[in-house]
Amino acid sequence: MKFARLGPIGQETPTVFHEGRHYDLLTLTADIDGDFLASDGPERARVALEAGWLPEIPNASALRIGAPIARPSAVICIGMNYAAHAAESGSLPPEIPIIFLKTPNTVVGPNDSVEIPPGSTKTDWEVELGIVISKRASYLDSPDDALDHVAGFVTANDVSERDFQMAVSGGQWSKGKCAPGFNPTGPWLVTPDEVDFQNLSLKSWVNGEIRQDSTTADQIFDVKFIIWHLSQYLALEPGDLVLTGTPEGVALSGRFPYLAAGDVCEIEIEGLGRQRQDFIAHEKAAK
Amino acid sequence: MKFARLGPIGQETPTVFHEGRHYDLLTLTADIDGDFLASDGPERARVALEAGWLPEIPNASALRIGAPIARPSAVICIGMNYAAHAAESGSLPPEIPIIFLKTPNTVVGPNDSVEIPPGSTKTDWEVELGIVISKRASYLDSPDDALDHVAGFVTANDVSERDFQMAVSGGQWSKGKCAPGFNPTGPWLVTPDEVDFQNLSLKSWVNGEIRQDSTTADQIFDVKFIIWHLSQYLALEPGDLVLTGTPEGVALSGRFPYLAAGDVCEIEIEGLGRQRQDFIAHEKAAK
Repeated sequence: MKFARLGPIGQETPTVFHEGRHYDLLTLTADIDGDFLASDGPERARVALEAGWLPEIPNASALRIGAPIARPSAVICIGMNYAAHAAESGSLPPEIPIIFLKTPNTVVGPNDSVEIPPGSTKTDWEVELGIVISKRASYLDSPDDALDHVAGFVTANDVSERDFQMAVSGGQWSKGKCAPGFNPTGPWLVTPDEVDFQNLSLKSWVNGEIRQDSTTADQIFDVKFIIWHLSQYLALEPGDLVLTGTPEGVALSGRFPYLAAGDVCEIEIEGLGRQRQDFIAHEKAAK
Repeated sequence: MKFARLGPIGQETPTVFHEGRHYDLLTLTADIDGDFLASDGPERARVALEAGWLPEIPNASALRIGAPIARPSAVICIGMNYAAHAAESGSLPPEIPIIFLKTPNTVVGPNDSVEIPPGSTKTDWEVELGIVISKRASYLDSPDDALDHVAGFVTANDVSERDFQMAVSGGQWSKGKCAPGFNPTGPWLVTPDEVDFQNLSLKSWVNGEIRQDSTTADQIFDVKFIIWHLSQYLALEPGDLVLTGTPEGVALSGRFPYLAAGDVCEIEIEGLGRQRQDFIAHEKAAK
C-alpha cells in the first residue's frame, strides 16, 4: 500500500495511491497520523480499497503533494550511518548510532520549494530512507521486535546547513538541521510488504547531475537495529519519523558546490518515489 | 496570570490559578496549547476570571498536576548557558548559544515520578527556566522583538543521563535527554508581567540537600537573545518550550552522587513554582 496527502499546505486530503490513481481516505480518517497508523488504519484502508468503497480523487495530478504523514511528534535522525559518508565528512564510522533531532515543523511536501536561510553559504542535500512508526516503541527486547512498530517507509531529504550545523553550533548538529522546509518528505508512505527496505537504491541529483548513488544495503546500522536501539533511549510515538542517515556524495565532501538559489535538487529511493525541490532565496536574504 | 492543567495523564483540565484557587477554563479552551496561546487566550482568560465567569474547580488540591502546557511541537534547549556550569562540565563558556532538542513526549507533570532508565548509572537533575512560545517566531529582526512571541515561563527539570548524553552518543547530546519522563514541567505557566524573569532565584535539592542555587541573572545569553537567536535557525511554534540552560550544582560536576531509585529531587524557580519527583527504578531494570 502507498499512502499520500494531497492539497494545499495544512489542508491535505489523505489518500491511497494505487495503480496510478489516488483514492480519498476521508471516510476512514481525517489524516495519515499516529492515531490512524496505530489503529490498524492501513489494513482498514486496504479492505476499503479492495471493496471499492473509496472514491477516486479527480484531477489528482493537479494537486500539490504534501508530506505523506501529518506533522510527527518527533523527527529522529541517525548520523553517519554509511561508512563512505562518514569518511567524506572526516569521521570514522561510528561504533554506535549517533542520534540527533530535527524540529517536526521542518517536514514539508516532496516538491515544495526550499528557502536557503539568510546568511547560508553551505546548504546541502541528504537523501535518506525514512521510517514511519506505527505504534509506540519503548525498551524493545530485540531488533526482531522492531518491525511490529513500523508503518512503512518514505523518501526524505535531510537538508542541512553545514556552518549552522558545525561552525556556529558548539558541536550540536540540530542548529543546522531545523530551518523551515528542511525536511521534504514523500511522495508516499509505503508499507513494509511493498519494498525490500534493506536493499533499495537511493540517489540524489543537483541540476540533473548525479550526486549520491548508493543502496540501503550499505547502512552500518540497519532498520531493525535502529528502531530497537532508539527505543532504549526514548519512546517512539505513532506517526514519528526516523531518518536513517545519508550515503556519500554531499557537498560537505568538498567534491561539489553547495546549493544556491536557482538550483534544483532531486532525490529518489527505489520504490518510495522521487522528489524535486527548487532551492530559492529567502526574501530576507534577497533584499 | 498563572495557568495550570489538572487531572489524570492525557485528561488534564486547563485552569487559571488565582489566589490559591483553580478556575476551570474549559468554557474558553480545550487545552493550554498553541492555538489558545496564539489567539490571545491568556487575555480572554483574564477577562473571564475578573468577570467571575470561570467556575472554581472543587477539590483541586486532590488532583494530579500536569505539565501546564499541552505537548509542544518541539522542546528546544540551550546548553552551557551559565558560566559556572560550563566550568563544572569541563567546558569554556560558549560564545554562541548551543542548541539541542528533547523529544516533546518527555514533558510530564512537575510531581510525576521519573523512572531511571534501564542501565543508567548517571541520571542527573537540571533546574531550568523554561520559555513558552505564544506566536510563531521566524527570523526576528532583533532581540527586542522576542517578548512579543513569549506566552510565559515555567519551571523545568531537564533530566539527563550523562553516559547516554556523552559516552555512547558520538557527541550528540539528545541521546541522554529524551528518556520517558525526562522533562517535568510546571506547576504553572506564568505570564511575563508576573515575574522579573531575568532576575529569578533557581534552586534544586536532592533528598532535601541543596544542589543548585543560582539566579537567571547569571545567564550568559538572556531570554530575549535566545528567542531571537533561535529564530534565525528554526521556526518556533506557538506552545513550544525553550529551556534556557542550567546553573552549576549538578552531579556531572563530580561533587554529588547521581540519582538512584528512592531519591527525591525538588526544584524551584522564584515565582514559577516548585516540583518534587520521586526517582524510581524502571520495571525492566528492577527485574
